[in-house]
Amino acid sequence: MKGKFITFEGCEGSGKSTQLRMLGEYLDGLGVDYVMTREPGGSAIAEEIRKIILSGKNAEMCDECEALLYAAARVQHLKEKIAPALESGKLVICDRYVYSSLAYQGYARGLGREYVESINNFALKEYPPYLTVFLDISPAEAFNRKHGADPDDRIEQLGLDFHCKVYEGYKKIAEDYPNFFAVDCLGTKYQTQEKIRALLKEKGAI
Amino acid sequence: MKGKFITFEGCEGSGKSTQLRMLGEYLDGLGVDYVMTREPGGSAIAEEIRKIILSGKNAEMCDECEALLYAAARVQHLKEKIAPALESGKLVICDRYVYSSLAYQGYARGLGREYVESINNFALKEYPPYLTVFLDISPAEAFNRKHGADPDDRIEQLGLDFHCKVYEGYKKIAEDYPNFFAVDCLGTKYQTQEKIRALLKEKGAI
Repeated sequence: MKGKFITFEGCEGSGKSTQLRMLGEYLDGLGVDYVMTREPGGSAIAEEIRKIILSGKNAEMCDECEALLYAAARVQHLKEKIAPALESGKLVICDRYVYSSLAYQGYARGLGREYVESINNFALKEYPPYLTVFLDISPAEAFNRKHGADPDDRIEQLGLDFHCKVYEGYKKIAEDYPNFFAVDCLGTKYQTQEKIRALLKEKGAI
Repeated sequence: MKGKFITFEGCEGSGKSTQLRMLGEYLDGLGVDYVMTREPGGSAIAEEIRKIILSGKNAEMCDECEALLYAAARVQHLKEKIAPALESGKLVICDRYVYSSLAYQGYARGLGREYVESINNFALKEYPPYLTVFLDISPAEAFNRKHGADPDDRIEQLGLDFHCKVYEGYKKIAEDYPNFFAVDCLGTKYQTQEKIRALLKEKGAI
């Protein structure tokens, strides 16, 4: 891969969208040639899969099905959009990646991290991120900031207990994956953004 | 599991639909309490996934995505429809199952059987069929009988070379899975049906 692959992780309400928008403005100012994308989705086929995953109508979806659909959307997005951009030398920034599956389906749903790693083997082995930024904020604090969950989003609707398990999962992932870095989000959004920029510079990502 | 789980496999045009209809009529006559279903699909969520897999619009779908979508539809269908029927003591007959993925994605698409087995671990370990009937007819002969592929079906449209690889894949699966039995389909549909009924009786499935 010629380009660098940076992924962002965090619980619902951790401020990822805001931080990614601010980072994009910064990179625009620097004149960096980058692609910003998100999971699940990011390609026409992956967006169709996203709709099935998130639809509030699909309450009967089993955990294994959910994990396999995320993995399917991921590999399609990788091959159609991320890999070509990396091969052409671009910086790629992705909102969520395989670690979301490990935290949400592996830990919080209780499928086990090994199972979720095995179905995501392609992403983990062929396209490991150069760097992952984890926006570290407790789910209770994040929920307060977000003023509740989107009633049309099946995942956001899950309760605080679930999101606490996601958070604990991320903490365990941080212990085992060397390029996974937590950024403390307790300050203002500007302070968090400064920490992110400093981390990306320190690790040679930008 | 109280009920017995019987699955049918075969290449496109092998006559599965006809044989399953004839078997259903026979079971109706015997007064057997059974569920007949099919893959991909068989539940509302799985049918939504089926549409994405088979849509002719999705020509850019990568092989890994296809394999993961089949596995996702399968596990949902298993949990929602097949497992409850088996637990209630019913005979379940399914048109295609995990061996289709091993033959089509593992062998013919070239993903490797081990990879496809790993993403279908739940189906293979938790719900292995009591018996699988493989309708054994060469793809060339099957194509002749079917008078060409459905232009709206992305899988059927693949050429004879692909379907020959599927067939060879099934032959290898037959060597390794002990409950996988080939039924020669060279005679009339009535002769084939007699062989299927005899096999099911011989193995204690009905």
